[in-house]
Amino acid sequence: MSLLKKIKDKKVNFEFNKEYIKVLVSKIISNDAQFITNSFKEIHPADAADIIEHLSEDNREKLIKLNNFQIDPQVFIELNESVQSEIIKYLSSDAIVSILKNLESDDAIKILENVDEQNKNTILSSLPPKDRFVLLESLSYPEDSAARIMQREFTAIPNNWSVGQTIDYLRENRDLPEEFLEIFIVDNEFKPVGTVSSSKVLRTQREKKMESIMSKSQLLIPVDMDKEEVGNLFENYNLNSACVIDKNNKLVGMITSDDVLTVLKEEAEEDVLRLAGVGNEEITDGIFKKTKRRFNWLLLNLFTAVIASIVIGFFQEDIEKVVALAVLMPIVASMGGNAGMQTLAVTIRTIATNELTKNNFNENILKEFSIGVLNGIIFAAISAIVVQIWFNDPILSLIISISMVLNMIVAGLFGILVPVSLKKMKIDPAIASSVFVTTITDVIGFLSFLGIGAYFFL
Amino acid sequence: MSLLKKIKDKKVNFEFNKEYIKVLVSKIISNDAQFITNSFKEIHPADAADIIEHLSEDNREKLIKLNNFQIDPQVFIELNESVQSEIIKYLSSDAIVSILKNLESDDAIKILENVDEQNKNTILSSLPPKDRFVLLESLSYPEDSAARIMQREFTAIPNNWSVGQTIDYLRENRDLPEEFLEIFIVDNEFKPVGTVSSSKVLRTQREKKMESIMSKSQLLIPVDMDKEEVGNLFENYNLNSACVIDKNNKLVGMITSDDVLTVLKEEAEEDVLRLAGVGNEEITDGIFKKTKRRFNWLLLNLFTAVIASIVIGFFQEDIEKVVALAVLMPIVASMGGNAGMQTLAVTIRTIATNELTKNNFNENILKEFSIGVLNGIIFAAISAIVVQIWFNDPILSLIISISMVLNMIVAGLFGILVPVSLKKMKIDPAIASSVFVTTITDVIGFLSFLGIGAYFFL
Repeated sequence: MSLLKKIKDKKVNFEFNKEYIKVLVSKIISNDAQFITNSFKEIHPADAADIIEHLSEDNREKLIKLNNFQIDPQVFIELNESVQSEIIKYLSSDAIVSILKNLESDDAIKILENVDEQNKNTILSSLPPKDRFVLLESLSYPEDSAARIMQREFTAIPNNWSVGQTIDYLRENRDLPEEFLEIFIVDNEFKPVGTVSSSKVLRTQREKKMESIMSKSQLLIPVDMDKEEVGNLFENYNLNSACVIDKNNKLVGMITSDDVLTVLKEEAEEDVLRLAGVGNEEITDGIFKKTKRRFNWLLLNLFTAVIASIVIGFFQEDIEKVVALAVLMPIVASMGGNAGMQTLAVTIRTIATNELTKNNFNENILKEFSIGVLNGIIFAAISAIVVQIWFNDPILSLIISISMVLNMIVAGLFGILVPVSLKKMKIDPAIASSVFVTTITDVIGFLSFLGIGAYFFL
Repeated sequence: MSLLKKIKDKKVNFEFNKEYIKVLVSKIISNDAQFITNSFKEIHPADAADIIEHLSEDNREKLIKLNNFQIDPQVFIELNESVQSEIIKYLSSDAIVSILKNLESDDAIKILENVDEQNKNTILSSLPPKDRFVLLESLSYPEDSAARIMQREFTAIPNNWSVGQTIDYLRENRDLPEEFLEIFIVDNEFKPVGTVSSSKVLRTQREKKMESIMSKSQLLIPVDMDKEEVGNLFENYNLNSACVIDKNNKLVGMITSDDVLTVLKEEAEEDVLRLAGVGNEEITDGIFKKTKRRFNWLLLNLFTAVIASIVIGFFQEDIEKVVALAVLMPIVASMGGNAGMQTLAVTIRTIATNELTKNNFNENILKEFSIGVLNGIIFAAISAIVVQIWFNDPILSLIISISMVLNMIVAGLFGILVPVSLKKMKIDPAIASSVFVTTITDVIGFLSFLGIGAYFFL
């Protein structure tokens, strides 16, 4: 089935998968590795990976352990990390080595990252010295650095060549990457001085100098730059590819926008999941894995919920006297929690995209404070009216309005201060902020409402 | 200052902006449009846009209204939408027309989307017929479709050409796009049959046929495909560019991965912000705009908080008798809310990336149910122990455990059912799900805890 048909008719795609998976499972059971290998060749590696991800863990293990079945390296790198680490356990070091040999350096690194320390050394020592050296060097950089997503295969030429010389070199040299969007021009010390897009070379007369058509305003990415930062640069400057330089400003690699697509998507996705306390959960993870991943967050939340309960506990006597306090107390806490999460979500995205800087930090704190005051006053008025109609008690209305203004201001301020402080302490703000913010708004919500209530009623 | 220096030394970047903005403001006041125009020419359009975004609304208005100042089209398209619509108000139709003429069709469309209906017609009628036709056709497709992000400038050749013929055509024809990653090969009816990357053309002998080096397994994007879907395809199949076809399968445009980068980033960002109820807020928005954007969500939340309070209100007598019920009641509701948000965040991302299909839907419902039961039992046990230690009351411990299991299961089920149902009703699940889910977990949390409490204590 052609990719085109699948895309144009989603239903075909679903049925195709379901039927196909059934056939595949029967072939796994009947030990027909040949059929599976052949049918994987007919579809895009990303689709084959998708199908393997949707097998049960059990069938996946059987498939990988089939005699005569070798997973295609291009399929392997398309699997999500969770399934990759699962499969790696069943693969021999030899099988992993042969996968690595067939991949470009950026893909090979992604796989090695999921292998445990001991096996990593065995595998590295089985690789040809050149490949080993390249991978070891990449591994020496931090996990989230540009070094890990760049490929070391690129096309560079000296700065005195003509277009004709370049084209002849490209035609004759077989040791170049399969495809490249840009040709890098380097000086005698291998420092990049400019780039020329492949299409520009195509459109220029042979006798012209490459230097005369190159674009100088290139973006040089230091090899240790954070990959999320690289993603922001690509997005900000609409890049298709960029060169990576080492500490001595020498050209060492190339990053293309398809690598960056994955980075940007993963990072933004992480923010959604981390804000909700799930971590890097995959849809294909099993029940126990999922339960375990979510457990810590819920435990932390239980702890903060108990703290909120302890605060309420201080006011047991007041609640016994005026039970309406118990009925209304969740309102202020919940409004604060929501206002806090609004500020938090905006702050976390602006931190991630480098829009929140030292320059505009104070201005933004002031903004959030003002928004807190404004929304606080508006919702103090609305909730006072609701409470007045419901309980017909002006004092109760007054209590809820005062604590509402207070908690909305607290929500705005901590919604911005908590993630910024965590970021300063080198903790990912998306992971931990929401627990802090909701704990603060819960505690202040209950404390202010019940405290002011106790003051007026006792 | 070179871009390189800015990237390698973030501090320089910040100081640079702050100092530069001061200078710029003084030049705006002294009416020195020439200085501003010249200095913008020295930096990347994306940086110039960044600086304009960080001016106060007031100064921005003055800048745009300066005599002899014309904003560079390349700078204009780099502005965020919020600032674009603000500036468009100050521009004459003529100024907008001259910006549009200088942009590629995908960028021109983005600007037209922000112009009000009446002005749009004036502007369109001032454009050259060819440009007008192209833009009108793009506007006839839905706002989130591939048509809006594709460019109509691309390079296509007949399927019987040789590499040499292609290169000569590219060298001679001045009416081609500035840059292209791939050359599309079309048949007599202008239907795409294959693509050849520019680098592959460069590396092949002149006499070879283009058809012999083209890759057939191309992805054809229907012009009305949702742009988020396009983003997923690019990410999934690691594409750098792809061709867009109309209803008759004819080639009409090209999408490149730098356009898709922006789409993917925006979509993932929207999910974070929408889950928190903020919509498309920009850091540069003013206080009143931000307050207004957040108001509806908070109002909705006030409504749901009042519903939860009404539920508590049913049990006033019970709370008066056993005040510990009031102290503990937020725990179950809050745990349910958090467990629900976990499931919700995972579900929304899997819906967005097309990983949740009819095929695995039932399986995932069952998974969430099982996770709810597992986590419910675990946290029932933990909270029972906490309550037992705190209040030394086995009945209270029993009440909290039963309602905990119940609410965790409800949280898991509605965390997946709510977004899927909203999606079916064509409502963006990221926007409305969390209100529904937390209302349900609040109501069930209070109702089950207080209800079971009333049963045991009365």
